[in-house]
Amino acid sequence: MIWNTNLRWRLPVICLLLEVVMIVLFGVFVRYDMDADPHWVEEKAIKNLTTDLENEFYYRYPSFQDVHVMIFVGFGFLMTFLQRYGYSSVGFNFLLAAFGIQWALLMQGWLHSFDGRYILVNVENLINADFCVGSVCVAFGAVLGKVSPVQLLIMTLLQVTLFSVNEYILLNLLEVKDAGGSMTIHAFGAYFGLTVAWILYRPNLNQSEGRKSSVYHSDLFAMIGTLFLWMYWPSFNSAISNHGDAQHRAVINTYCSLAACVLTSMALSSALHRKGKLDMVHIQNASLAGGVGLGTVADLMILPFGSLLIGFICGIVSTLGFVYLTPFLESRLRIQDTCGVHNLHGLPGIIGGIAGSVMASIASIDLYGEEGLAYTFGVGRSRTNWSPNMQGRFQAAGLFVSLAMALVGGIIVGVILRLPFWGQPPDENCFDDAVYWEIPKEPKSTALHPEDSSFRPPEP
Amino acid sequence: MIWNTNLRWRLPVICLLLEVVMIVLFGVFVRYDMDADPHWVEEKAIKNLTTDLENEFYYRYPSFQDVHVMIFVGFGFLMTFLQRYGYSSVGFNFLLAAFGIQWALLMQGWLHSFDGRYILVNVENLINADFCVGSVCVAFGAVLGKVSPVQLLIMTLLQVTLFSVNEYILLNLLEVKDAGGSMTIHAFGAYFGLTVAWILYRPNLNQSEGRKSSVYHSDLFAMIGTLFLWMYWPSFNSAISNHGDAQHRAVINTYCSLAACVLTSMALSSALHRKGKLDMVHIQNASLAGGVGLGTVADLMILPFGSLLIGFICGIVSTLGFVYLTPFLESRLRIQDTCGVHNLHGLPGIIGGIAGSVMASIASIDLYGEEGLAYTFGVGRSRTNWSPNMQGRFQAAGLFVSLAMALVGGIIVGVILRLPFWGQPPDENCFDDAVYWEIPKEPKSTALHPEDSSFRPPEP
Amino acid sequence: MIWNTNLRWRLPVICLLLEVVMIVLFGVFVRYDMDADPHWVEEKAIKNLTTDLENEFYYRYPSFQDVHVMIFVGFGFLMTFLQRYGYSSVGFNFLLAAFGIQWALLMQGWLHSFDGRYILVNVENLINADFCVGSVCVAFGAVLGKVSPVQLLIMTLLQVTLFSVNEYILLNLLEVKDAGGSMTIHAFGAYFGLTVAWILYRPNLNQSEGRKSSVYHSDLFAMIGTLFLWMYWPSFNSAISNHGDAQHRAVINTYCSLAACVLTSMALSSALHRKGKLDMVHIQNASLAGGVGLGTVADLMILPFGSLLIGFICGIVSTLGFVYLTPFLESRLRIQDTCGVHNLHGLPGIIGGIAGSVMASIASIDLYGEEGLAYTFGVGRSRTNWSPNMQGRFQAAGLFVSLAMALVGGIIVGVILRLPFWGQPPDENCFDDAVYWEIPKEPKSTALHPEDSSFRPPEP
Repeated sequence: MIWNTNLRWRLPVICLLLEVVMIVLFGVFVRYDMDADPHWVEEKAIKNLTTDLENEFYYRYPSFQDVHVMIFVGFGFLMTFLQRYGYSSVGFNFLLAAFGIQWALLMQGWLHSFDGRYILVNVENLINADFCVGSVCVAFGAVLGKVSPVQLLIMTLLQVTLFSVNEYILLNLLEVKDAGGSMTIHAFGAYFGLTVAWILYRPNLNQSEGRKSSVYHSDLFAMIGTLFLWMYWPSFNSAISNHGDAQHRAVINTYCSLAACVLTSMALSSALHRKGKLDMVHIQNASLAGGVGLGTVADLMILPFGSLLIGFICGIVSTLGFVYLTPFLESRLRIQDTCGVHNLHGLPGIIGGIAGSVMASIASIDLYGEEGLAYTFGVGRSRTNWSPNMQGRFQAAGLFVSLAMALVGGIIVGVILRLPFWGQPPDENCFDDAVYWEIPKEPKSTALHPEDSSFRPPEP
Repeated sequence: MIWNTNLRWRLPVICLLLEVVMIVLFGVFVRYDMDADPHWVEEKAIKNLTTDLENEFYYRYPSFQDVHVMIFVGFGFLMTFLQRYGYSSVGFNFLLAAFGIQWALLMQGWLHSFDGRYILVNVENLINADFCVGSVCVAFGAVLGKVSPVQLLIMTLLQVTLFSVNEYILLNLLEVKDAGGSMTIHAFGAYFGLTVAWILYRPNLNQSEGRKSSVYHSDLFAMIGTLFLWMYWPSFNSAISNHGDAQHRAVINTYCSLAACVLTSMALSSALHRKGKLDMVHIQNASLAGGVGLGTVADLMILPFGSLLIGFICGIVSTLGFVYLTPFLESRLRIQDTCGVHNLHGLPGIIGGIAGSVMASIASIDLYGEEGLAYTFGVGRSRTNWSPNMQGRFQAAGLFVSLAMALVGGIIVGVILRLPFWGQPPDENCFDDAVYWEIPKEPKSTALHPEDSSFRPPEP
Repeated sequence: MIWNTNLRWRLPVICLLLEVVMIVLFGVFVRYDMDADPHWVEEKAIKNLTTDLENEFYYRYPSFQDVHVMIFVGFGFLMTFLQRYGYSSVGFNFLLAAFGIQWALLMQGWLHSFDGRYILVNVENLINADFCVGSVCVAFGAVLGKVSPVQLLIMTLLQVTLFSVNEYILLNLLEVKDAGGSMTIHAFGAYFGLTVAWILYRPNLNQSEGRKSSVYHSDLFAMIGTLFLWMYWPSFNSAISNHGDAQHRAVINTYCSLAACVLTSMALSSALHRKGKLDMVHIQNASLAGGVGLGTVADLMILPFGSLLIGFICGIVSTLGFVYLTPFLESRLRIQDTCGVHNLHGLPGIIGGIAGSVMASIASIDLYGEEGLAYTFGVGRSRTNWSPNMQGRFQAAGLFVSLAMALVGGIIVGVILRLPFWGQPPDENCFDDAVYWEIPKEPKSTALHPEDSSFRPPEP
């Protein structure tokens, strides 16, 4: 089947249409939260705040910027490992994230920051919008190279919507803890993306197999993504934790987990290669699994050694997944998972969810102190009959809800994306920037200077 | 005409000379502001400050570091899109910015932080010096590939001087608002650079046309620059705003504007290509125009939807500029604008200036609250007869002053740079690192390992 | 001699073993400091703290993240300049740093944060662990390309141990000032690494000479490392300074020193080339020497012009070192210093140590104020008979202790690493990723699209 990949009218129309809708909805609904409003100077007097530093901005802005880098440079460059899909990896990630954060501000705003008339936004909304889009970036990894930017915008619109509903169920109805989003962001995003990839299965994808691998430099570009994700993950997992010790603890735990994860990823990568050589795919991905796995428990009393243990396990599971599970998924379950998001976000997300359930079950006054326990789990505010055991069961329920939402939502969205008029590439042109991008011609001759002979082949 | 491009004595002499002058002037004039002085511990007692956090450092340091990244990685890598000019793009940007921040600390210091005997510097001075150099980086984009590092140092010396005078007129005499520098940084820098490029017009530049385009990997390097500029722009536009709600608001507004801008850039890029393909030049540049356009109004009450609207417009105008205006400027006005700074900084800078004038005119107690209005516009301190209307007119005047300074200054500096002994490259060697850099030889053979066959052509 | 470079069991076993030991030791010893513990809410009440911002987290977290980027992206990418060693540069740096920070948390914890039963960690411990690993990254630069990852893990284990002991002697016994670690991190790391390289001397290394240089793109990757090191160095030198003016001053000083250093590096690079061309090696490395040289005095009253002066000198010394000293070290002293760490960390580290001694000797109440002097040098707490002169002599002693520890430690570690069973590469395979990494095949044909002809040679 020949699809028309010329997006000349489809892409501009959907972009402009979505943006106009955003402007109208923002005009009707979005206003500044008190902390970002000029009336804050009066609020300060009323609340008897002595310093401008009590503005929420100063608590969260550095973390926000780190999260922002993870979404745009981290996810964007992580996916540039493909030899001829770098423009699309970075560019489409840029596009979907830029749209997604706007829609997420609205969706999350209506569910969490609505005062009856307006959505009041502050820096925490910006972080949550980035988080929400993070789950879309995860799903993008599963379908990378096989979809058009029009499909990505539709997927973003629908996934952000589902994400926000799922997040509302988990955080507001089940009142689960999920600081770094092992369940809401990673497990949800991964299984949503995998389900979409399953629906969009391409039996003849081997026609573009030659472009599905990396080249030397593309793997270095991908390492830029990996490292910024790895370095800033402590900010990700602590960004919306309670002020003070909770943010502090989440950083220490994530730092530990990620460090352990690098060692086990390297160990397994070497052990699973017949000559003991390391594989960049594992280093680029599995070394991040510790951050995913620690997402739910980041600000709980898992202690530094518990964090190391989670990182240890996640690094092993993730690398094993790349070696054994990804080929199995493709050959038996017909799920073509381009970036292996199942290994980086899916399995570690489930591990994180389970860890959260266990840690909540064993929460105690011994571990947290009386006030600490109440503050950490929000007990006392409205939850008078709270018990660790109940919290543990609710955590587990949250994991199941996320997985169910991902599967059902992924099927619906996948079916919509299968419609033949979204400009998707034919099987033989997958993983190829040239379908959607103007590609520069390589120079015919650079022979102006004798010392400048790069890319010129030796004479035959 | 054959110019001598051997800089063996010219570049070292000017670098060392400038640096010695800097050391002497710093020795005579520059001291630490109280917040960075060991006597601050006494100051704290006098001012009755209860916490070290009241040190200005904690309000502004995270923003400073983000701005710093924008100047050195952002601008530096944005210009690496040229296939054989990456060393110069990053390296000369590094050189001019490193010199420029020193000279800016002095120039801005004498005009803004002089206590009669010493310039007292703190983190805000560092941010302002980076801002000032930002305008030189903008101008560098217009002349990229056609000037020597000696010319760049001279241009930096003179442009920083003019920038500081212009900034003083705007901020201190006209008392305009320009949080993110749409007028002082972007419009000034762009039109200054374009004027210099106009004076330095090279009729035979087509002789190096082959190197004026990108190659696949160079466009990915440029995206590193683009993304760091895009992600940290909220810090840029909020870095020197008032503490508290103003910084907070500037971040939210810039975040919104930039997000909208990405969608309209993509839309226009696709719509203007005969096959609907996207052009990396637009994504690299036009997607940033929303940050420029929001510079002046960043901390005003433009509301989130107003920010989206500015981003919407800037993305469209900027992409149209790349497609239609840049060729026109070159063929008709003899302005060779290598990076298209007119589209990214010029036009959006003017849009930003106009938006500032409009927003100031409609400022009211309804929008800001009484105290908020006074705090935002600095009313009451010295400006008893202040009115929104007057502020609006002063904003407009500020834009015109900036453009006039840029044109007049650009002509003077351009004429100086035309002198034939600054080591500029001949027309056929423009856009070529090999003129000023030792270039590594590409490997003759990498045949030691069979699996390592990169860059080796197949046998004929 | 043929060494076996198949690491299939050696690397996994050592990684897993080390990580298991870490988990056990963390389980026995490591707990959260009060600032990261849920009991902090009670502590706040006891200490009468009115705001969560008084948590140490908010003073140091932004600096921590910057330091983290320097270690992983900065050092990692700085070393990617080699044409075929990018995977190893980034990947092995990642591995050794991820292990090193865990071991450093323990070693430094026992010596500095041990309450008799537990090591109590907070964000300052994380920064110090990163610092400690920084010195291993420095040493890695000296042996880059000539060692296996197994050797690197052993080196890391032993160097972190020695670093912690040396640091304890300097900071706790000699009570020297060394904010940015000119002595403890840079001089120690460099001379330790050089000594190891001396012991591991390879007389036939010229067999892999062809791979010891850069290619065009690899130098651009290296500039990513350079710039992130350069931009975030102010955070490095101020990260663990006293709250308030000391952190603030350290930032200003480092900013100045680094700026000056860029100009003198460029000047010398051009002056020392017969055609006046710049050398990327100098720009990548010597432009950072000002940050190293300012490490010890960063938060002392060196004044901005003093900082410029140190940067000025370090840029010159470092570039001269690359041109004259590195070849001399290799040919005469049989020290093969792959990255020239002697020029970037060794000599500037010594300059920094000397500057610290001088600055301490001239400390006075005039310069610092009475309280400022006491606060800066920790006088009064326990040091009643303190005098500037004594402090100066102790600073000098600290430098000598660091150098002695580096030499003795380097010899011991070098001898251990010479054992023939660590999987080191043979002389002809040094600087080659293919020894330890699965390398992607370059594409045979990318001829699916006519516009996509990159890397394809013209027909013969």
